[in-house]
Amino acid sequence: MPLEIPEVVIERLPVYARALAALQARGLDVVSSQELGDQLGVTPAQIRKDLSYFGRFGKQGRGYNVNRLMEELHQILGLDRTWSMVLIGVGQLGRAILQYGGFGPQGFHVIEAFDASAETVGEMIGPLTVRDVSELGAVLRHRHVDIGIVSVPGENAQRVIDTLVAGGIRAILNYAPIAPQVPSGVHVRQIDPVLSLQSMTYYLKGNTASAAK
Amino acid sequence: MPLEIPEVVIERLPVYARALAALQARGLDVVSSQELGDQLGVTPAQIRKDLSYFGRFGKQGRGYNVNRLMEELHQILGLDRTWSMVLIGVGQLGRAILQYGGFGPQGFHVIEAFDASAETVGEMIGPLTVRDVSELGAVLRHRHVDIGIVSVPGENAQRVIDTLVAGGIRAILNYAPIAPQVPSGVHVRQIDPVLSLQSMTYYLKGNTASAAK
Repeated sequence: MPLEIPEVVIERLPVYARALAALQARGLDVVSSQELGDQLGVTPAQIRKDLSYFGRFGKQGRGYNVNRLMEELHQILGLDRTWSMVLIGVGQLGRAILQYGGFGPQGFHVIEAFDASAETVGEMIGPLTVRDVSELGAVLRHRHVDIGIVSVPGENAQRVIDTLVAGGIRAILNYAPIAPQVPSGVHVRQIDPVLSLQSMTYYLKGNTASAAK
Repeated sequence: MPLEIPEVVIERLPVYARALAALQARGLDVVSSQELGDQLGVTPAQIRKDLSYFGRFGKQGRGYNVNRLMEELHQILGLDRTWSMVLIGVGQLGRAILQYGGFGPQGFHVIEAFDASAETVGEMIGPLTVRDVSELGAVLRHRHVDIGIVSVPGENAQRVIDTLVAGGIRAILNYAPIAPQVPSGVHVRQIDPVLSLQSMTYYLKGNTASAAK
């Protein structure tokens, strides 16, 4: 396996894995890069190129074996195990994240939640008792944690992320509207609806302008 | 301006615009592609290439004028105006979205919210009264709406998205864990924390395996 796989390729693989799971649920055994591409809105060439980083999965003109490709992707991505997460910031958004039903079935478990507000610390949410954010560093030293979820206001986010990084966390899901500074080797995924919206208005704007002519 | 700008380039422009706003707030007049790249974790070459689609912003060796580049990006992306949105699905997540303070200042306004549950329909959330989702099509015919936000459970999402598309919506922010089918010309941005997590475990897995040796 080559060492340097572009991060954008890694980011697309879970999308392929999910599409394959849907095909499997529908009972399909084989899928072509064309069919997979149609379903996902990407070109078949893109899919073939992305998968080629990980060896030859398909046979020319025969398509991909759905089960086998899905298994391989799960192994490549580490989806065949469970991962421990901490969440920092138990506001409205943090609560929605804690109660989101989609993490557990995919092997992602929040094992501790933290907040800075005296009213929230000590509150029970599901099986968790919210802890004071000042304890975050100590918890990271004593429990195995893979991933940090940051749902604090923007002005507190870099400090929380620094604490996560100092505690050895190398994967951060960041909901705060900042582009955090992290050392190389630490991976951040930004959940930012405003950036997503702003990347669509380009297309609306174009059409609005031409419609106005 | 060339017609075919890759969608991945468009998706990066709001990130540049935000970084420039932060530099402006710090009083900087000029920034090099190297400095901008360092801040965002992308190569200077990537930044120069992305911006080259829109004409020459910078001068060789002189860097970019922060104010001018930000203004241009705002105009390109349509960030200099306001956009109307509807939200469908007023569960815990939908409520967090409705109460999220980050949309308004960026010109994005939810003007109607819809739900399928009899208990939620009629409830007031901020200035909005939640409407029955069966009224969505009619509302889209009578009010100007630019963007749809979908925060319903996965099994209902494609149907809701079909209604949005039939109502002329061409930009959809989708929080449901499905890859929806939409006609070409309709843009979807997926907000999916599980996909984001799954694209980071690849890196954790690699290091865990070598640490276990």
